[in-house]
Amino acid sequence: MQAVWLEKNQIALRDVPQPAKPGEALIRIRKAGICSTDLELVKGYYPYTGVLGHEFVGEVVDAPDRAWIGQRVVGEINAACGACEACKNGRPTHCENRTVLGIVNRDGVFAEYTTLPVENLHRVPDSVPDEAAVFAEPLAAALEIQQQIQIKPTDRVLLIGAGRLGQLIAQTLALTGCDLRVVARHEHTQNLLKARGIRITTGDEIQSRRWDVVVEATGSPEGFNLARRAIRPRGTLVMKSTYKGEMNVNFSSIVVDEITILGSRCGPFEPALRLLEKREADPTVLIAAQFKLEESLKAFEQAAQPGVLKVLLNNN
Amino acid sequence: MQAVWLEKNQIALRDVPQPAKPGEALIRIRKAGICSTDLELVKGYYPYTGVLGHEFVGEVVDAPDRAWIGQRVVGEINAACGACEACKNGRPTHCENRTVLGIVNRDGVFAEYTTLPVENLHRVPDSVPDEAAVFAEPLAAALEIQQQIQIKPTDRVLLIGAGRLGQLIAQTLALTGCDLRVVARHEHTQNLLKARGIRITTGDEIQSRRWDVVVEATGSPEGFNLARRAIRPRGTLVMKSTYKGEMNVNFSSIVVDEITILGSRCGPFEPALRLLEKREADPTVLIAAQFKLEESLKAFEQAAQPGVLKVLLNNN
Repeated sequence: MQAVWLEKNQIALRDVPQPAKPGEALIRIRKAGICSTDLELVKGYYPYTGVLGHEFVGEVVDAPDRAWIGQRVVGEINAACGACEACKNGRPTHCENRTVLGIVNRDGVFAEYTTLPVENLHRVPDSVPDEAAVFAEPLAAALEIQQQIQIKPTDRVLLIGAGRLGQLIAQTLALTGCDLRVVARHEHTQNLLKARGIRITTGDEIQSRRWDVVVEATGSPEGFNLARRAIRPRGTLVMKSTYKGEMNVNFSSIVVDEITILGSRCGPFEPALRLLEKREADPTVLIAAQFKLEESLKAFEQAAQPGVLKVLLNNN
Repeated sequence: MQAVWLEKNQIALRDVPQPAKPGEALIRIRKAGICSTDLELVKGYYPYTGVLGHEFVGEVVDAPDRAWIGQRVVGEINAACGACEACKNGRPTHCENRTVLGIVNRDGVFAEYTTLPVENLHRVPDSVPDEAAVFAEPLAAALEIQQQIQIKPTDRVLLIGAGRLGQLIAQTLALTGCDLRVVARHEHTQNLLKARGIRITTGDEIQSRRWDVVVEATGSPEGFNLARRAIRPRGTLVMKSTYKGEMNVNFSSIVVDEITILGSRCGPFEPALRLLEKREADPTVLIAAQFKLEESLKAFEQAAQPGVLKVLLNNN
């Protein structure tokens, strides 16, 4: 089958054997999404060799439990061992022996087929089209913030960054009723937010030491510095991006202001699917372009342009 | 009156006018304690000019409400405005206009007298001797951890640092029943912990990625690195010290492991006094030496020696 293969910071479309893992479901990919992590992996953020991609919607074509066959599914990307301390304590996304779809020791979804343990699969409700379902993974990641901390309706929340993940975070945070402001620099990303009644700012007029919760979704030192300046004493600063290398932080001021800094990664799929089913979140507005799998290299080129949101890869 | 005066990284015993602030209580200092923050202030950690010192027990000699006169008291160090947003939201220790006893724009307690607003005062129970009451402020700071996060009885908690504040943190954490281990390097600090049945380690054999909560109380990059290594995914790393300059942090790993980093500063006095009254905490074992106020410079010299815990200054 065809697949987008990453090796030594180079991607190529390659013919690879169709995957087959005993005990796992075989899934035919319908649509897959290119995310910032994929772009960072190509740049060498983490050493990975194999088939790229982890955001998908597909169809089960084979599975140990035949009830899955024919189901349209999305899938959690961390395949856990079920036996380690993290797994036994209900933290399978932190399994010490995990493989991660298209990221760590597990071929991903920019291909005709992939495999996953059936425990990782979630059926997609019929009313949710592929174009929306393919966003289940990043939408779940956005919801992870509210899985980790309580966003009160009275909270002032500042989101820094309105890119692929930022847009989904903005949509889900807005549902809490909180006083949300989003730092968005590109006109297109500003307009998407405005269309949902979400207030935007360019960041310059952000009041210092005022925000109860700040979500940093740019992955840049500038974003972090703005977040640090904006957060109020005893506020919570959520780190929701990939950060290259190391950053310098003045920890004495973190202590004096009793700031909480919280790392946030993968989130819960079922609530994401519920929001998609009820159309409370609409990720389809992020779609910038769709390409056939064979045009993956062009798709990656477009996805890497500044201000471009979601680029999808389609099978057949 | 005599006072320990800090100016341009130099301390000196000086004759200064007896303080008098309309609306505040005048307190005769009975005992005061030298803390790491005092030593850091002398080194220039924060630019402060004035009378040093913030840990004390004293006696009210004058006050707007005469009921306070003659009371033996300890005092919260942050004097708040009562009107700013932090104050109105119940965070007076984060008042944007605060002065801080012996630290920010408010003469401290290494003197014969000091003044504080009566709202900052707490009566000391008769059964608590001066030698214990003088520790109310750092004991409250230790309890701030449990004011901020829940320590579960089943939690594995690693405390890094067994100095002045570390000893008090160890005593209060041990009361939760948690599985506590303390990294202590000096024999004397190890022995104090052992005497209370608290388990110690030198840090070398600490298992990585195992501890639910890690409290960093050394203020050193080495302590932070050990903390980062020891904390489990989704664990909480409490920063409980002063940190010089900036530290380099790999935030991608904080995101991937969904670590919480929490700054922790001043804490609640009433619970500290309750623990002292019930003798559940015994800070007096930390006392290394007591000096008269006139011998303050000698006292500071001793307090700055490695491994020396609490040095007290006595009036009269």
